[in-house]
Amino acid sequence: MQLSSQLLESAVKEFSRLPGIGKKTALRLVLHLLKQEKKDVQQFSDIISQMREDIKFCSCCYNISDNELCSICSNPGRKKDIVCVVENIRDVIAIETTEQYSGTYHVLGGVISPLDGIGPDQLTIEPLISRMLIGEIKEIVFALNPTIQGDTTIYYIRKKLNNSSLKFTTIARGIAFGGELEYADEMTLAKSIRNRLPVDSYIQ
Amino acid sequence: MQLSSQLLESAVKEFSRLPGIGKKTALRLVLHLLKQEKKDVQQFSDIISQMREDIKFCSCCYNISDNELCSICSNPGRKKDIVCVVENIRDVIAIETTEQYSGTYHVLGGVISPLDGIGPDQLTIEPLISRMLIGEIKEIVFALNPTIQGDTTIYYIRKKLNNSSLKFTTIARGIAFGGELEYADEMTLAKSIRNRLPVDSYIQ
Repeated sequence: MQLSSQLLESAVKEFSRLPGIGKKTALRLVLHLLKQEKKDVQQFSDIISQMREDIKFCSCCYNISDNELCSICSNPGRKKDIVCVVENIRDVIAIETTEQYSGTYHVLGGVISPLDGIGPDQLTIEPLISRMLIGEIKEIVFALNPTIQGDTTIYYIRKKLNNSSLKFTTIARGIAFGGELEYADEMTLAKSIRNRLPVDSYIQ
Repeated sequence: MQLSSQLLESAVKEFSRLPGIGKKTALRLVLHLLKQEKKDVQQFSDIISQMREDIKFCSCCYNISDNELCSICSNPGRKKDIVCVVENIRDVIAIETTEQYSGTYHVLGGVISPLDGIGPDQLTIEPLISRMLIGEIKEIVFALNPTIQGDTTIYYIRKKLNNSSLKFTTIARGIAFGGELEYADEMTLAKSIRNRLPVDSYIQ
């Protein structure tokens, strides 16, 4: 794609570096911005650089935050004795959207994956363990993706905290709502039969 | 979607204003930027605002340009006696990509559409006509979309230049390569039979 302007060309190049955005989409976005008011585009540009400069990670749970402590950790209404361990910030947002959880979080920043060169030291496991050892926390809920890496991470953290009296739980696995039995994979179906639930708890 | 950071929230809001980008995609883009180096994000932000501030429109053809004249109008290798009239900059890029055209362009900025409140005055038709009257130009190629608005625009310009000795052409309409006859609409098929081509010109 040959563009008549160097400035346009470099703007398109920058946009097409974003995930899932190809050159044609990038061009569409740039031409859209060109049609906007100068002050609106300036605001767009300012907010992006300000966000990257000023966003912090919560010193307690490593969630994204504007301050030292994130809005969840500093909220007195949230239960401080239960911690949900997640892989990344998107998982926090997904769980928050359900409005079913009133505890706090701990964002690992990934899962243990030796093949990708990610060991426990690259993640926030050490701070998680220090957090647990203070003694305020009673339950850890693992909400990691059901992969080998996720399970390895759970196993690793579980083992590190072996001597504690913590309660370890994981989010329920099973057939999704709207899912059809015959298309479910064997492993999920097997687990969902083994870990069957009393109907009373299901229809609550 | 409840986010734990005001900065994140406003960045997501800005991104989701772009066409075709919803809140979830916006969040993915913003989280991607958060993971990049600060200087790369600063560069992204700078290029966007610089582009909006500094990009000009070519004083001759209204294409996007870094200078007074765009790279096509100022290129001595391009034929100055043939002008291709297009609706917008994307059409220029599409035609340039084919590498089949060596003349210059004129970007109208839209087509006449009374229903949308777009009359000849909102477009660059006046400058096009002044350009034609200088006498250097011999042929106008209309490359507008085959809609009523496009045809109206061609008709309007054609009539304004009635007394000139210009040659008026339009890009060929017909069955697209890879298109199947039985699925072609009646109008296209009718026109492509009426304006049939000698086989010799087709196999060139």
